[in-house]
Amino acid sequence: MNIKGIAASNGIAIAKAFKLIEPELTVVKATISDVEAEINLYKEALVKTTEELQKIKVKAAQNLSEEEAAVFDAHINMANDPELLSQTTDKIKSESVNAAYAFDEVSNMFIMMFESMDNEYFRERAADIKDIKKRILAHLLGVKVNDPSTIDEQVVIIAEDLTPSDTAQLDRNFVKGFATNIGGRTSHSAIMARSLEIPAVVGTKTILEDVKDGDMIILDGLEGNVIVNPTAEQVAHYEEVAKQYEAQKAEWAKLKNEKTVSKDGQHVELAANIGTPKDVEGVLANGGEAVGLYRTEFLYMGRDNFPTEEEQFEAYKAVLEAMGDKPVVVRTLDIGGDKELPYLHLPKEMNPFLGYRAIRLCLDDTDLFRTQLRALLRASAYGKLRIMFPMIATLNEFRSAKALLLEEKAKLVAEGVTVSEEIEVGMMVEIPSAAVLADQFAKEVDFFSIGTNDLIQYTMAADRMNEKVSYLYQPYNPSILRLVKMVIDAAHKEGKWTGMCGEMAGDQTAIPLLLGLGLDEFSMSATSILPARSLISKLSKAEMADLAAEALNKSTVEEVIELVESIQK
Amino acid sequence: MNIKGIAASNGIAIAKAFKLIEPELTVVKATISDVEAEINLYKEALVKTTEELQKIKVKAAQNLSEEEAAVFDAHINMANDPELLSQTTDKIKSESVNAAYAFDEVSNMFIMMFESMDNEYFRERAADIKDIKKRILAHLLGVKVNDPSTIDEQVVIIAEDLTPSDTAQLDRNFVKGFATNIGGRTSHSAIMARSLEIPAVVGTKTILEDVKDGDMIILDGLEGNVIVNPTAEQVAHYEEVAKQYEAQKAEWAKLKNEKTVSKDGQHVELAANIGTPKDVEGVLANGGEAVGLYRTEFLYMGRDNFPTEEEQFEAYKAVLEAMGDKPVVVRTLDIGGDKELPYLHLPKEMNPFLGYRAIRLCLDDTDLFRTQLRALLRASAYGKLRIMFPMIATLNEFRSAKALLLEEKAKLVAEGVTVSEEIEVGMMVEIPSAAVLADQFAKEVDFFSIGTNDLIQYTMAADRMNEKVSYLYQPYNPSILRLVKMVIDAAHKEGKWTGMCGEMAGDQTAIPLLLGLGLDEFSMSATSILPARSLISKLSKAEMADLAAEALNKSTVEEVIELVESIQK
Repeated sequence: MNIKGIAASNGIAIAKAFKLIEPELTVVKATISDVEAEINLYKEALVKTTEELQKIKVKAAQNLSEEEAAVFDAHINMANDPELLSQTTDKIKSESVNAAYAFDEVSNMFIMMFESMDNEYFRERAADIKDIKKRILAHLLGVKVNDPSTIDEQVVIIAEDLTPSDTAQLDRNFVKGFATNIGGRTSHSAIMARSLEIPAVVGTKTILEDVKDGDMIILDGLEGNVIVNPTAEQVAHYEEVAKQYEAQKAEWAKLKNEKTVSKDGQHVELAANIGTPKDVEGVLANGGEAVGLYRTEFLYMGRDNFPTEEEQFEAYKAVLEAMGDKPVVVRTLDIGGDKELPYLHLPKEMNPFLGYRAIRLCLDDTDLFRTQLRALLRASAYGKLRIMFPMIATLNEFRSAKALLLEEKAKLVAEGVTVSEEIEVGMMVEIPSAAVLADQFAKEVDFFSIGTNDLIQYTMAADRMNEKVSYLYQPYNPSILRLVKMVIDAAHKEGKWTGMCGEMAGDQTAIPLLLGLGLDEFSMSATSILPARSLISKLSKAEMADLAAEALNKSTVEEVIELVESIQK
Repeated sequence: MNIKGIAASNGIAIAKAFKLIEPELTVVKATISDVEAEINLYKEALVKTTEELQKIKVKAAQNLSEEEAAVFDAHINMANDPELLSQTTDKIKSESVNAAYAFDEVSNMFIMMFESMDNEYFRERAADIKDIKKRILAHLLGVKVNDPSTIDEQVVIIAEDLTPSDTAQLDRNFVKGFATNIGGRTSHSAIMARSLEIPAVVGTKTILEDVKDGDMIILDGLEGNVIVNPTAEQVAHYEEVAKQYEAQKAEWAKLKNEKTVSKDGQHVELAANIGTPKDVEGVLANGGEAVGLYRTEFLYMGRDNFPTEEEQFEAYKAVLEAMGDKPVVVRTLDIGGDKELPYLHLPKEMNPFLGYRAIRLCLDDTDLFRTQLRALLRASAYGKLRIMFPMIATLNEFRSAKALLLEEKAKLVAEGVTVSEEIEVGMMVEIPSAAVLADQFAKEVDFFSIGTNDLIQYTMAADRMNEKVSYLYQPYNPSILRLVKMVIDAAHKEGKWTGMCGEMAGDQTAIPLLLGLGLDEFSMSATSILPARSLISKLSKAEMADLAAEALNKSTVEEVIELVESIQK
C-alpha cells in the first residue's frame, strides 16, 4: 500500500512500524469520603509527573537543543500551577469527588478557556495543558502511557501527531523516522525531524489507521511517500535511493570546509540562522561561513522577567567567540506580533502582524533596547559583530535606533569598556516601504538583510499562517523578485552588501534566482547549507543573471517556477 | 476662555451653548411581590422605546441618509432582542427584583461581554446596547432624557460625545454646530457633522466641564478652536472669518458646473465616493464629474441574508440612471477583514487585514460573486458603468474575476438581456504586489484605482486603526509616492487611466503631488470636490510634475511635507 503525505524531513528509512497510540484515560466520577487522601493522591501524581518531565527534559537537552528542552520547564511549571492545584483541591473538597474527576474537570476548563481565546499563544498553551493533563491523569488512573523510550529495535514511528515530549524521548539509534496523520512542513514535528536529521512524512491523514504494529515500512522523506509492506522490488529500489542520498550527503560533506563559489568563480556567503549559542555547533558542523541571523528573542522567552545585560552579554559573547573570525549578524529584539512575552504586558491587537512590535516597541521602550545594545557592544570585542534592526519602515526609525547605539557606545567607551570599532550596523528589509526606498536607506546602512517571510506577507497582504489565504504566500512572485532586486541594486550602488535570512534563502528553487539577482549572503537553516553550496557550485552566476532578468518580466508566479524548472531539467 | 480641540467639520458658528448631559439613571435594587406587573412594566418600556426609535429613524431619514437611518432599525431589533427579554424576565421572576434592576444587570452583562471581545464589530455593538439601555432605563425610571429635538433657538451643542441617536435628532435650523469632549476626525460624530455640513470641534477633553448652559460660544471648525464668552472684538473677528469662509464657499459653488482644469489647462476628473444610491444627490450638488467608488458593501449590511440579484440590480440601476452620462465605478464586494457580515459566518482571523476578504472570498464563493456580477451587467444598460475588483494581489486573481464576469455576460446575452458593450473592467491597487507589478497588470485592465488607505497600511506594515503604530500611516512617505508613480506610469504606457479612491485623493497636501504624478481621476468625499477643483485651478500641472519628481527623491515624509508647504506659502 502506498500512502502519500508531505515530505517534512529528507532521507529514506526502511524499518518496522511502531504505533504510538494515545492511552485510554477514561475518567469516572466517584463520591469519596476521605478528602485528604484524595488530595494526597493528586499531589503524588504531580510529583511523579514532575519527575518524569525532568527526565524527559534532560534527554531533550542531549538529543535536541537547550531551547527545545526549555519547553519542559514550562510544562513543569504548568503542572504545578497554583491555580490548577487550588481549584482541583477545592473541587475535591467541596464536591467530595475523586481526584481524577476533579482534575479532569478543572483542566478541561482551562483548556477550553485558552482555546477560546483568539490568540496563537494561548492556543499553544492549551496544547501544553493537554500534554501535561495526559501525564497527570495517567498517574492518577494508574495507566501506563506508551513510552517511546522503551523502543529497543529499529522502527519507524507511526502516530496521529508527535508532541514535544514524544519527540524529546526519541532515541536516534532506534527511531529511523516517523510518519504522522496531521501536520505540515512547518509544524512542530516536522521541524523536530529536520533538527534530529531523521526522515519524516507528515499530513498523511490516515496512516495511523492504515498501518498495523510491526508492518514493514518504507519511509520516503524526500518525496513524501510511505509504502506499507513493500515488495522485494520496492525495497531494492529504495535501498538504491537511500544509497544515492547517502552518497549525495557524503558529497555535500566534502564541501564543508570549502568556500561557496559558483561555476563561473563568483563567491557568495552561506550563513545560518540560529536561536541560541548552542546552535553554533550545528552551524560549524554544516560548514556555515557566518551566522546570518541570530534571533535574540529566545533569550527573552520562557521566563518571567527581562534577561539582564550580563545574561545577554554572556550569550552574545558565547556566539561570537564560538564563531571566531566568522561574522555574526545579531538581530535586535523582534518581539510583539505573534511573538508575545507574558511579562511585557502588551495590549491585544486587532492585527498583530501590522502592530506594535520589534523596532517600534524598542524605540518606545528605550530602556529595554539600551540594555540589549550595551550587551551587544560589550560582546563586540569577542568576534566579528554585525547588528541589524528588525521591522524598519522609515529612515527616521533607522536613524533613531542607530543614534541610541552610538550613545550607548560612547558611554561604554567613556567607562573604559572595550568596544569593537568594526561593528557593521544594518537593517532587515521586511517591510515593502523599506524595499521601495532602499536607495535612500543604502546611503546610511552598512548592509541589508531581506526578511522574506514578512516581506512576502506584507507585499501580498496575506497572513501566511492563515490557511484561507496561504496560497498568496508566493516567494517567487515577480513582485517579490523585483523588490529583492531593488534592495540588492540599491546596496551595490552604495558599495554595501545584501543578505537574506528568510526561508527563501535556503530554497532550491529560489537560489538560482537569488544568485542571479546578485545576493551576497544567503542565511538559512544550518542543514540546508551544504546542499545550497553544492547547487551553487553547479550554477553560473552570469547565466543566472539572465534567468533572473527574464523572471522579473514574468507576470505570475507559475511562469517563474516554470522558467526555473526549465534550467533544472 | 479659549479651548483647543480637533477641527472635525469646517465652518464658523456663533451661538449660545446648549449642554447635552447624560440623564441621571440610578438603579436601586428592590424586592417586588407582583412579578407579572414588573414584567409588564418592562414590556411597556420596550414598546415606548421602540416607538421613540421609530420616530428618530424617520427624522434621521429626512436629515441624514437612509444608511444612517438604518442604524435605528438595528437599535430597535436590539431593544427587542429575545435573549435580552428572556434573561431580564427570568431574573425578575427568579430573584423577585424590580424590572430596572434586572434589566440593568442583564444589559451590563451583554455590554461587558461585547466589550471584552477583541473585535471592532462587537465593541460597536456594545456602544449600541449602551444607547438603547439608556432609553429603556429612562422609561422604566420615569426620567426625562434631555431631548435635542426640543431646541427652538440657535445653539451650539456641547456634549461629552454625540451618539447616532443624538445626531439624528439635531435640527439644522437651530443647531449651528457642536463641540465634544472626546472623538477624533474619523469618529462617528465628526463624520456626521461633515455630512450635515455644520461646523464641529471634537476631542476638546474638557469643554463639557468648562462651559455653562447659555454661555456664548464661538465655534471655529476650520482651526479647531472654541471661544467661550468671547469679547466683542473676538466676535467681530470671527464674523469676518465666517464671511470669508462663506465667500470662499460661494466661489467654490461657482465651480460646480465647471470641468476641473489646472492653471496650465490640463483636465483631470474629480469624482466622489458613495455608499448608497441616495448619496448621488450630494455628488451632483457638489459638482462631481463621476462616481469614483461605489462601495457596494452597504447593500449587504444591516440585514440577515444576502441581497438578491433584483435588489442589487435596482440599487446599481438607480445610481447609474441618476448619474446619467457621468461614469460610475462600482467596486465589487469588499467584505471580510474589519467589515464582517454576521450571516456570512466567517471564521475569526488572527490578522483580518491580511486575511480572507474581498476578491479572495468572492473567487471562493462564486455564487455570491456571480449574483453581484449579473446585477451589475443588467444595470450596465442604464448608464456608464465601470467595474473594479478589490484586493487584487496577483494577475491570476484578476483574470479569474474577469473570466467570471465574461461568463455571466455571455449567459445574459444568450438570455436576450441587454448588456452594455462599453463596460470598463479595472481593479483596485491597494496591495503592494499589484503596484510593483503594475506594468504587467496594465496590459490586461482597463483602468486602475489606487486605494491608498489599504496600500499605505500594507506598504508600511502598520494597522491604521492601531494607535500605537498610527504614526506609520504616512500618505506622503516617498515609498508610497513611488508606488503611486509606478502605477500611473504603467497605466499610461498602455494607454490606460489611473484613479485614486483613498482618503489621500481629497487631501489638500496630496493633491499637488498627485496632479504632478499624472493621476487622471481623484475620487473623494463629495464635499471635498469643490475645494479640490479650486485648488487644482491654481496649480500648474507641469510645475507640480517637477515638485513630484523632487518629492520622489526625498528620504522621509517630513521632507516631503516641507517641500509641498514651500509652494503653498
